[in-house]
Amino acid sequence: MKPLLAVLSLFLGLFTFQEPVGAQSVARPAVSSETQACVDCHENATPGIVADWLTSHHAHTSVDMGLAKPAVERRVSATSVADELKRNVVGCYECHTLRKEKHLDAFDHFGYTINVIVSPADCQTCHPTEVEQFSHSKKAHAVGNLMKNPVYSLLVETVTRPTAFDKGKLRAGKSSGNAKNVSCLSCHGTVVEVKGMRSIETEAGLIEIPNFTNWPNMGVGRANPDGSLGSCTACHPRHSFAIEIARKPETCGQCHLEPDVPAYNVYKESKHGNIVDSRRERFIWDAVPWTAGKDFTAPTCAVCHNALVTTTSGMVVAERSHDFGARLWVRLFGLVYSHPQPVGGETHNIVNADKLPLPTTFGGTPAATYLISREEQKKRQSLMRNVCGSCHTSDWAERHFTRIDTTASEADAMVATSTQVLADAWGRKLADKANPFDEPIEQEWVRQWLFHANTLRLAAAMSGQSYAAFEYGWWELNHTLYNMEEMIQIRKKVK
Amino acid sequence: MKPLLAVLSLFLGLFTFQEPVGAQSVARPAVSSETQACVDCHENATPGIVADWLTSHHAHTSVDMGLAKPAVERRVSATSVADELKRNVVGCYECHTLRKEKHLDAFDHFGYTINVIVSPADCQTCHPTEVEQFSHSKKAHAVGNLMKNPVYSLLVETVTRPTAFDKGKLRAGKSSGNAKNVSCLSCHGTVVEVKGMRSIETEAGLIEIPNFTNWPNMGVGRANPDGSLGSCTACHPRHSFAIEIARKPETCGQCHLEPDVPAYNVYKESKHGNIVDSRRERFIWDAVPWTAGKDFTAPTCAVCHNALVTTTSGMVVAERSHDFGARLWVRLFGLVYSHPQPVGGETHNIVNADKLPLPTTFGGTPAATYLISREEQKKRQSLMRNVCGSCHTSDWAERHFTRIDTTASEADAMVATSTQVLADAWGRKLADKANPFDEPIEQEWVRQWLFHANTLRLAAAMSGQSYAAFEYGWWELNHTLYNMEEMIQIRKKVK
Amino acid sequence: MKPLLAVLSLFLGLFTFQEPVGAQSVARPAVSSETQACVDCHENATPGIVADWLTSHHAHTSVDMGLAKPAVERRVSATSVADELKRNVVGCYECHTLRKEKHLDAFDHFGYTINVIVSPADCQTCHPTEVEQFSHSKKAHAVGNLMKNPVYSLLVETVTRPTAFDKGKLRAGKSSGNAKNVSCLSCHGTVVEVKGMRSIETEAGLIEIPNFTNWPNMGVGRANPDGSLGSCTACHPRHSFAIEIARKPETCGQCHLEPDVPAYNVYKESKHGNIVDSRRERFIWDAVPWTAGKDFTAPTCAVCHNALVTTTSGMVVAERSHDFGARLWVRLFGLVYSHPQPVGGETHNIVNADKLPLPTTFGGTPAATYLISREEQKKRQSLMRNVCGSCHTSDWAERHFTRIDTTASEADAMVATSTQVLADAWGRKLADKANPFDEPIEQEWVRQWLFHANTLRLAAAMSGQSYAAFEYGWWELNHTLYNMEEMIQIRKKVK
Repeated sequence: MKPLLAVLSLFLGLFTFQEPVGAQSVARPAVSSETQACVDCHENATPGIVADWLTSHHAHTSVDMGLAKPAVERRVSATSVADELKRNVVGCYECHTLRKEKHLDAFDHFGYTINVIVSPADCQTCHPTEVEQFSHSKKAHAVGNLMKNPVYSLLVETVTRPTAFDKGKLRAGKSSGNAKNVSCLSCHGTVVEVKGMRSIETEAGLIEIPNFTNWPNMGVGRANPDGSLGSCTACHPRHSFAIEIARKPETCGQCHLEPDVPAYNVYKESKHGNIVDSRRERFIWDAVPWTAGKDFTAPTCAVCHNALVTTTSGMVVAERSHDFGARLWVRLFGLVYSHPQPVGGETHNIVNADKLPLPTTFGGTPAATYLISREEQKKRQSLMRNVCGSCHTSDWAERHFTRIDTTASEADAMVATSTQVLADAWGRKLADKANPFDEPIEQEWVRQWLFHANTLRLAAAMSGQSYAAFEYGWWELNHTLYNMEEMIQIRKKVK
Repeated sequence: MKPLLAVLSLFLGLFTFQEPVGAQSVARPAVSSETQACVDCHENATPGIVADWLTSHHAHTSVDMGLAKPAVERRVSATSVADELKRNVVGCYECHTLRKEKHLDAFDHFGYTINVIVSPADCQTCHPTEVEQFSHSKKAHAVGNLMKNPVYSLLVETVTRPTAFDKGKLRAGKSSGNAKNVSCLSCHGTVVEVKGMRSIETEAGLIEIPNFTNWPNMGVGRANPDGSLGSCTACHPRHSFAIEIARKPETCGQCHLEPDVPAYNVYKESKHGNIVDSRRERFIWDAVPWTAGKDFTAPTCAVCHNALVTTTSGMVVAERSHDFGARLWVRLFGLVYSHPQPVGGETHNIVNADKLPLPTTFGGTPAATYLISREEQKKRQSLMRNVCGSCHTSDWAERHFTRIDTTASEADAMVATSTQVLADAWGRKLADKANPFDEPIEQEWVRQWLFHANTLRLAAAMSGQSYAAFEYGWWELNHTLYNMEEMIQIRKKVK
Repeated sequence: MKPLLAVLSLFLGLFTFQEPVGAQSVARPAVSSETQACVDCHENATPGIVADWLTSHHAHTSVDMGLAKPAVERRVSATSVADELKRNVVGCYECHTLRKEKHLDAFDHFGYTINVIVSPADCQTCHPTEVEQFSHSKKAHAVGNLMKNPVYSLLVETVTRPTAFDKGKLRAGKSSGNAKNVSCLSCHGTVVEVKGMRSIETEAGLIEIPNFTNWPNMGVGRANPDGSLGSCTACHPRHSFAIEIARKPETCGQCHLEPDVPAYNVYKESKHGNIVDSRRERFIWDAVPWTAGKDFTAPTCAVCHNALVTTTSGMVVAERSHDFGARLWVRLFGLVYSHPQPVGGETHNIVNADKLPLPTTFGGTPAATYLISREEQKKRQSLMRNVCGSCHTSDWAERHFTRIDTTASEADAMVATSTQVLADAWGRKLADKANPFDEPIEQEWVRQWLFHANTLRLAAAMSGQSYAAFEYGWWELNHTLYNMEEMIQIRKKVK
């Protein structure tokens, strides 16, 4: 066994990477002997993740040190943790051995019982508030909201199915697990289960490890072998877990990307995105709390949607939330029409007037009992106005919010027209509504709400002007509508 | 009232952000008592903008200090300013109270008469040369060039109009102010007028502010309540006004984006964009003058189009210009065909041989009297060759310019063919030319010149090869042309 | 003549740009008198490239110094070079005068015989291993692989040809050299030949220079006037030649871009791309060797595909290779179907069962004798698994590789269906197979393999989920397939 010195020398070698200012003068907490054993082997087996962990806060701090900070600077929301977790740095062993009894993926690994997948339920040990908030979000339920919803799961199947050509006709097959895993479920998350053990060859010889289904996956709503939902590493990637990365818009941009969820693209084109891009080297990306004007001079996604933001004089602008819809009154993307945010994160249980698990009917009527009240909407607008208020007047914010709501209505009206055109095609037997996603004219309709209306609404919300105009926005809404009508005219003649 | 010390302590707290090298040893000019009063309240009301201002040159310098610099390093082009503006830092009060008699948006705000919108005519106090140049540019006239031109305003209306489905037919409505404001006018600028006053709730109670139309807006050609045109903040965002931001390509990329003006996308893919991306941390982004090789090793948009650029030995490569077309001989985007740059910035007054306010006819004949002469074109080529000459031989530049001109002609020829195909459809009554923008085949024609030809020309001008090939360029020009012909064949049969 | 001091003072002026740590204390090697003469003139004629060269390793080191380094840190692979090249810095004259007898572009320039184009065969003097590896790559043969292959050259011609409208019909002309040079050949490379001399005007008067065809060009496979193939400057841009730039994904992104080769776009959206974007300021971009965890914490293109990568304990993870396909077992893009990597870099010599120079038939059968064996594929998978192994378990890597291979097969199957649909159209005389690229339904087929299948395969390989789903991936594969069928239905009726 290598002495602790080996790790410390690594620390020294990594000063270039991340050394909190002034940290040299503070005594570092000890590394547990178990974590040291992990490191001794893994700095050869998977050296990159050991080195990455060494750049993390976890490698430089103990829970005790975290708890000693003033409330507003704290990164741990627990008020106490078990004694054996308190004093050492937060290392491999500390995280990969929690809640053993729940972990179907716990296994013997060179004499230690560890598990592969550290889940939100494990992170909850030190970060209970964050995990509690997250558990109520749509993100935590991202797998079920997609796959337990028959409408959405039909869309997934239709998009990813293999299609053959048989006796002069297209014949659709059944979508494979692989096709879904590399596309939709890569963001939404897969259902990861343990199917016994399997042997793999390593430099240390043949070893036995749990045999996972649908693995690897870091989708934000992943169903884990310990029964929990979510994957913190979707935004806080292993093993730096850096708040800095989670706060950068590129992290959100992994999933919130054009054409269906172009939040990142729109943001990047906005003045906010422009300033952040231009001044990113000057920002203090890992300050807790995050102070407007001092640590950043224009908002990233995290500023508006979830970070703990303060003013230079120490006032709290917005509390941290890991329920990413909690500050929002209206839901702008993902569905056919915009609508008030759902009350809970589990949206596949909604039942609308069409008896479908969707927040609005195909005509646009909201399933009001499942959506937040007008009062709650106002409360959230006020909360969000506070965030804008760091730099903008309340007049500015109010007018901007009106612009969002008006644009959402205008986009919804264009979708409603498209839905009527499609219904006309169905009525004339020019298309078959059995599967509303599989024929050319239906796919144009999908593009209208999933690509074009989503884009226009987000473009108004974050001032991404090109996206409101020619890139998917207004141009495409009208262009596609007239194309749909043309398709009907032609089909009428040639059918 | 807080003492000046409060502001100075903020200065200290912001050292991380921006501290001109060596500045500590220079005595900072004073903050006027009026600006101090603004800051005292707004560091609570809108702390972000106060902190952002503190990162600006304005907050660290007086006009007197600016005037004392050698000519080539000067950021102020005025030779003198009023005494009361000379000695203090350039703060809130200094800018928000200029030319009171012109400002219809001037109002009483806690005992001070201020105005909300600081316009180019205000900035002109210290920066007259820049504003004068800008006033002759197409940018300054961006609202009128779009909305006072009946052809373009019809395009705007057609793209952003709501469309309903009524008795089995699409029925177009009238575009809303909101739809235009979030899309086209977000870049071009809105007409901002004052319609009396309105009350808003603030932490300091109910206050009265001017009631603006079409607000907020930072479009580059905005029509302001003081009668001036333009918005400096489009490129120099409030309240850092950083030259650093204006010089970064992302700033231009807010509006010059695919599919209609993909200058930013093309640049980003070019070798120039690649080097700038790779070495941006090494560049000195705010040096005045900007020295090729020393401050940057590959050009951004600003280097070629408007910055004051010098060589390491102090020679001026190009003078600063805020008329962004002044170095250009040919206009590559925005119109149906490429053509020599217009003589003036106000293009809606052009009359071509079709009697339309466009720089060429639909057949491609230029409205020569409104466009720069062959001699002026040569002069500008020579100016631009000088910029290229910082790193490239004159042989290289000349061949590159030939490539631009040849590609512009080739793109124009493809557009001309598309126009002929459309005219054929009109002649056969397969489409109605009353509105040339609203039917499917007409929209394909719009895509040809507005998306594909624009892209190909810009791709040649800035060496963005993928955009010349498959991303909107040659591929789409031919692909769309054959699709247009197919549409005619089908329409002939089914009409 | 200016003294050497002038250059040294420039060195000092450029400290901000690039100064290897500790370099100040080492005596810099001398600048040769010939290079000094170049610099004396060119710091006025083209100051940017002189300044850029001063930021290079070449300007700070001699070959002797490079040879003195430990093997793993060496940037020169030569074991010795000619005496006159050993002791001075690597300057203008050292590189622009090599192999004079081979250079058809050698000419007299103010008393010195120099050549304009420094080719891989010149770089080989000090970097023989890199050039040898490169010469076997597909990149080195990028011009011939495109233009000597009749199938591909027909695609190039069809995409870039001018099309006129003549007596109511589209009539395709012949693609110009300019059109090909600004698009396809800008990445692939042009054939550069010397056609005598030409005079150009310079500040030093009229001078004679070689008259090049198809110039300028920095395509990776450029055919040079000295008979060699390639352009090192495609990735190591003049005159910094910085390894830092070559290692940044934006460099690869100049050519590997959507819609046809969206490797960069996919990577940028992946977790790897996200981490690199977020932490790029912390990476040590020019360390040789490049150490996982210490110099970078997530891979760029270069890490996986060609860089010399080591672990913190000094083990070599992967040897450097300038044959960019050498670590890959399967070829995912550019062709109709995926297939094992070709044995050699010159792919236009392949003959498949259709007698065409393509690695598979139109039905998908591989031209096995020209492709690497199953054994070689396994060897390369193992090599690549080693790279993943810096951070991931072998279980993870293996599952990821399975996902790549499965997705490639699924994408291939969708292309095969599209090919069958097209063959059906050909069989029914609804399209003419004489040119398989020029009619609307054929262009949809091209989009299927060149845009959509390429994207889906690359999205699986680098975990760019949106690209696997809605951005060109599965969505477009099915959408386009049903559109192709619709086109056939309509054509049947209207033909």
